[in-house]
Amino acid sequence: MLGLLLIDHGSRRAESNHQLEDMAARVRRLRPTAAVAAAHMEIATPDLATTFAALVQQGATHIVILPYFLSDGRHLTQDIPALAASAAANHPGITYTLGSALGPHDALAALLLERGDC
Amino acid sequence: MLGLLLIDHGSRRAESNHQLEDMAARVRRLRPTAAVAAAHMEIATPDLATTFAALVQQGATHIVILPYFLSDGRHLTQDIPALAASAAANHPGITYTLGSALGPHDALAALLLERGDC
Repeated sequence: MLGLLLIDHGSRRAESNHQLEDMAARVRRLRPTAAVAAAHMEIATPDLATTFAALVQQGATHIVILPYFLSDGRHLTQDIPALAASAAANHPGITYTLGSALGPHDALAALLLERGDC
Repeated sequence: MLGLLLIDHGSRRAESNHQLEDMAARVRRLRPTAAVAAAHMEIATPDLATTFAALVQQGATHIVILPYFLSDGRHLTQDIPALAASAAANHPGITYTLGSALGPHDALAALLLERGDC
């Protein structure tokens, strides 16, 4: 089974962390056959390793890590790959790949205009 | 003329700031009759006031400020509204509105899957 692991930075604001759960629910509707769960890079729980283990527990054998970040940077090039490698080391036989940042993309340009009501 | 002002947080990474210019170019292609320009909330230039003035100079009479942020938070509820009010105070007769954060949204869920090649 495919596992989809959304990860954002993590915030002290509960509302911000809750929005990642909202995004996970949206991804789940688009990929109903996958196991989908969310994690935070830091500050908030669950962390990447906890969510990775939960997806394996649900039957995921390949996990795609989906960063909920607008742009690449140290978090995407260094921090999250390191967390992913560490999490995967606990689960021999489980493979994973890492997605890239959301932007820039025409879909974001269209969404900017929608959010500005223009 | 409509002015569209994209604003992100601003980064020490030139590449991150450049990506907002890339997004402005994408918005420009979607709204070729509008004046479109980018600004950074802090750290990098141009700031909101400078870009606001540049759009007025180009003939914009109403400016929509489009935040390039995934979630609402203090920056969107307090910092950017304060910067916008301050910038607009220099331009009597120019109106403006402020868009909301990009997420959560189904378009972002689809984009997460695309960026993960799944």
